[in-house]
Amino acid sequence: MTRDSDDPPARRRFLVQGAAAAAALVGGRARADEAAPPAIPDWMKTPGADVGSQTYGTPSRFEADVIRNVPKGLKQYTSASSRTPLQDLDGILTPNGLFYERHHGGIPDIDPARHRLMIHGLVEAPLILTMDDIRRFPSESHIYFLECSGNPGFEAIKGKTASDLVGLVSCAEWTGVRLATVLREAGLKPEAQWVVAEGADAAALTRSIPIDKCLDDALLVYSQNGERLRPQQGYPLRVLLPGFEGNMNVKWLRRLNVTAQPAYSREETSKYTDSMPDGTARQFTFVMEAKSIITRPSGTQRIAPGFHEITGIAWSGRGRIRGVQVTTDAGRTWQEAALQEPVLTRALTRFRLPWTWNGQPTTLMSRAIDETGYVQPSFSDLTAVRGLKSFYHNNATIPWRIAGSGEVSNGYA
Amino acid sequence: MTRDSDDPPARRRFLVQGAAAAAALVGGRARADEAAPPAIPDWMKTPGADVGSQTYGTPSRFEADVIRNVPKGLKQYTSASSRTPLQDLDGILTPNGLFYERHHGGIPDIDPARHRLMIHGLVEAPLILTMDDIRRFPSESHIYFLECSGNPGFEAIKGKTASDLVGLVSCAEWTGVRLATVLREAGLKPEAQWVVAEGADAAALTRSIPIDKCLDDALLVYSQNGERLRPQQGYPLRVLLPGFEGNMNVKWLRRLNVTAQPAYSREETSKYTDSMPDGTARQFTFVMEAKSIITRPSGTQRIAPGFHEITGIAWSGRGRIRGVQVTTDAGRTWQEAALQEPVLTRALTRFRLPWTWNGQPTTLMSRAIDETGYVQPSFSDLTAVRGLKSFYHNNATIPWRIAGSGEVSNGYA
Repeated sequence: MTRDSDDPPARRRFLVQGAAAAAALVGGRARADEAAPPAIPDWMKTPGADVGSQTYGTPSRFEADVIRNVPKGLKQYTSASSRTPLQDLDGILTPNGLFYERHHGGIPDIDPARHRLMIHGLVEAPLILTMDDIRRFPSESHIYFLECSGNPGFEAIKGKTASDLVGLVSCAEWTGVRLATVLREAGLKPEAQWVVAEGADAAALTRSIPIDKCLDDALLVYSQNGERLRPQQGYPLRVLLPGFEGNMNVKWLRRLNVTAQPAYSREETSKYTDSMPDGTARQFTFVMEAKSIITRPSGTQRIAPGFHEITGIAWSGRGRIRGVQVTTDAGRTWQEAALQEPVLTRALTRFRLPWTWNGQPTTLMSRAIDETGYVQPSFSDLTAVRGLKSFYHNNATIPWRIAGSGEVSNGYA
Repeated sequence: MTRDSDDPPARRRFLVQGAAAAAALVGGRARADEAAPPAIPDWMKTPGADVGSQTYGTPSRFEADVIRNVPKGLKQYTSASSRTPLQDLDGILTPNGLFYERHHGGIPDIDPARHRLMIHGLVEAPLILTMDDIRRFPSESHIYFLECSGNPGFEAIKGKTASDLVGLVSCAEWTGVRLATVLREAGLKPEAQWVVAEGADAAALTRSIPIDKCLDDALLVYSQNGERLRPQQGYPLRVLLPGFEGNMNVKWLRRLNVTAQPAYSREETSKYTDSMPDGTARQFTFVMEAKSIITRPSGTQRIAPGFHEITGIAWSGRGRIRGVQVTTDAGRTWQEAALQEPVLTRALTRFRLPWTWNGQPTTLMSRAIDETGYVQPSFSDLTAVRGLKSFYHNNATIPWRIAGSGEVSNGYA
């Protein structure tokens, strides 16, 4: 990029006229602020905290409100979920401390030296592996999203913040061994069609994974965003099935039973199935379809007239996001948002669109299109097919209503 | 990927014969272990910890040793550094809690509501911006490494672990606004050639940045790995100059003074310059040259004969890593390691090479080649040019000695 120093000032300011105006205003005020340069703020007048005062760092005390969103007043918290504060985050990665939770029997406290993974069933040589054994296999690292299939439920769409609505999605760089590598080590018998994964939690959460996924991109993961998995995300070992619904990515993994039939476990019969209008049920709805949400501006925030960057996240369990369209006029017109590169398969994708708000009430909405050409549906399009007895796999577009006051609220509520 | 169920077992096991042997051995022992499946470990017998028991999560108590590497016995910790435990990490990202530190006046505790950034000097309209103003500009997110230029010093190459040697490098996804956008908002005068950045720490750390870098990929960053910067990394605002030496990426940024000449500050005269053999000094040595290190196996670890995956990280301030070569025979032969995709410009790049150790003493080493064709030098090649009076910008290859016992140690020591 070269310096265009002969550009007239007016051209240099093309991007953020609104922000410029705001800055000029604030600048006037700021000069009277004792913390503003050239005045010296208090925190420059004495040495700060020592190097190494935190051997494992934590956020600033001024960010104490950026925490997981835990529902209040539940009868129990053993089988429940907490949500990522999407409206407070930038980029595509979720810090491990804010990664969403969904547990069915609480979080076990596992000693990795005592943890074992058994591979048995339709294999030639059953194996029991230690964590050291697992870490000796060839490894891979990939950035993938993970999403609960009930994000939101069909009836839960009345939350206030982006986190309330779809905070059961997060994204991280995962490191582990290909499940295919470990299965080949044991040797699959020809009749092997499913792998039944069991967690070492009090729920012994059990899900059946089709063999094709096991031999494709499935991973046994021990690290997340560089460090070892957190207890909330399956320490010391979990399944990672890129693009598949969250609960299949079995945490605290202790057992892989290779079978000819699925287990028809609680989590694939009573739970994680959907009643259709004709009385049948959808079962084994593995893939999380394309979805997006605007995270800024979003519910409970308040904006002023002028320039804003609309930004949010999009993702698809079927591959890469091809595009995200944004409406700033309640769906009358749609504009193509910019996608942050690199756009990775089955990872969150950050989109952005510059916007100048004229102060009139309106509604903002985004819709994702993935590499298969699939377009994120509206809620009415979705329910026209799925009915209203469903609970899982609601990937409808999310409208944010902007009031004349600048207050942003859930367009469904 | 299709299922090759008609492969004979022998072919399926091509990847990890060594691990297979180890697993078979361990498996025999593991069956007697009370925690092994199908026995039920203690942690499955009672419900685990509640959902939301940590609103901001922390690592497992079994990972308590994975912390920043803080030097012991220093006279003061106001101007010092702590290192990332590279040997314990996977992938390319560094969790914020383990990101390396280098402070010159301690860590200030800044209230973002009171923090201001002033842009002045050779500009048409000086600005004083609040954090809210800065967050209203168009934003970008990128994964970049950050490295201290004294990583290691020329004399510090005697450490034991990968962290001791080159733990002053980390990598994160950064979000912020292009510095060019903010400078154009103020309007650069034609004679502007440098931007002098000042931190709001007790050292008022000051560095001069060439205008070409400011108008290229330089960022003003407020978020790191999704969440706001940590205090140790410049909360609430820092400079990010992809590929440039760490101390130029001024933390706690309060002032940008646009000038025709550099400031010749303490950190670009007394410090961060290098004495050459002919008595002259290298100054403004901005770019971190290509470098790599094997992180596993690495110093203080102990390996057994059989299969191992050699893995490590490579990076270059000049762009993408083109390749990493690894020797397992003390430099007699070199093999091309696999690079984890996507390989990103000025980010850490994870490399891997399968290796079967025969139990004989040897030396492992990696060397990085970047997209400019530059090859990471040996220490003797480096000192032939730079002499031994230098302190900064030592990017020499790092040999790990493997003893017959399997103990891994620093090949320089």
